[in-house]
Amino acid sequence: MLPRAIQKIVEEFSRLPGIGPKSAERLALHLLRSEQRDLDSFSTAVENVKKGTVLCEICFNITEKSPCPICSDKNRTKNIICVVEEPLDVFAIEKTGEFKGVYHVLHGALSPIDNIGPDDIKIQELLIRIQKSEIKELILATNPNPKGEATAIYITQKISFLPATSARGGSASGGSYKLPALSHLAHGLPLGGEIEYADFETLSRALRGRVTY
Amino acid sequence: MLPRAIQKIVEEFSRLPGIGPKSAERLALHLLRSEQRDLDSFSTAVENVKKGTVLCEICFNITEKSPCPICSDKNRTKNIICVVEEPLDVFAIEKTGEFKGVYHVLHGALSPIDNIGPDDIKIQELLIRIQKSEIKELILATNPNPKGEATAIYITQKISFLPATSARGGSASGGSYKLPALSHLAHGLPLGGEIEYADFETLSRALRGRVTY
Repeated sequence: MLPRAIQKIVEEFSRLPGIGPKSAERLALHLLRSEQRDLDSFSTAVENVKKGTVLCEICFNITEKSPCPICSDKNRTKNIICVVEEPLDVFAIEKTGEFKGVYHVLHGALSPIDNIGPDDIKIQELLIRIQKSEIKELILATNPNPKGEATAIYITQKISFLPATSARGGSASGGSYKLPALSHLAHGLPLGGEIEYADFETLSRALRGRVTY
Repeated sequence: MLPRAIQKIVEEFSRLPGIGPKSAERLALHLLRSEQRDLDSFSTAVENVKKGTVLCEICFNITEKSPCPICSDKNRTKNIICVVEEPLDVFAIEKTGEFKGVYHVLHGALSPIDNIGPDDIKIQELLIRIQKSEIKELILATNPNPKGEATAIYITQKISFLPATSARGGSASGGSYKLPALSHLAHGLPLGGEIEYADFETLSRALRGRVTY
């Protein structure tokens, strides 16, 4: 029914996450109304999205050249690593301006149902990184959902089994490095929200983690 | 902060209707994880979306060649025209299989706030079409919202001022053609919905337009 060129672009859009067939049709129609110049610019951007980027050899964030600007910045504290699931998490945290350490991007979270195991994300790379240089603190900033929390727990366990089996942050008995202290982001009420609408689990955590003035 | 190639594709996605900066970032990240082969295919589809299509010279629907398959179909009733705002409306109505007439695509609706007047959509073309051949019925299937209804009212008035100023569907006193009968789609409760959640205006119309068994 739809002309082939439109059908093709609708298919392409439908493959993107969060875009259903209706939205895909609407987007295709929008493109149809655009100038050819704009279509060419969009087309080139799609074609080149991967060509201009690599993964940082240290933190595995996406970057124009490796090591990434954060890993090569002399002013960043290299022994505090914030472990995140996705590159976008890095950009979100960077926008706050609160964090002066470095990152480790896992590129996903453990999810047996999606067939994603420890070897499919950059966990081994994290363990090697911890063993190679002395890390003071590891902030496990995975998402506060079942997959993210399972990933954090898995990493915690893996670290406790590393050769230097001393207490966290203590000196290694046999190994030549210290195990890092582990932390996670605070859980609680999101700002701008209302207690009335907070879900049960968030409110429980906000209560348990209440801060005294 | 984001690599340039990513920034560029985020910008391109953000320009699409209904895609905010957050979604654009997520889509960009998704493309980054795709195979180059898939990116090339997407890129080509974007580039060619307009190249493979023209507007039908009769109904202004998008088509691979003009006149479109509907206008050149001998089995369609040519003197019943369904006037719609967008090509996607044609595809939605065609899917029902209920309509055997032809279409007229306005490519928009009147919207003074967006600076869209009668000359910016295919209203003049519709009036010419009505005068050129005898149309029995004109179904004004613009959207049931303020812009769509204003457009329908405008078209109704324009038609009543056409040279053949006889009663609708009656014979022209001086002109050589009959004015078409005008109709609009039924308004009422959408199927699958619940009365409890119907908005005030829809429920009012459903009551006023109630059908006796």
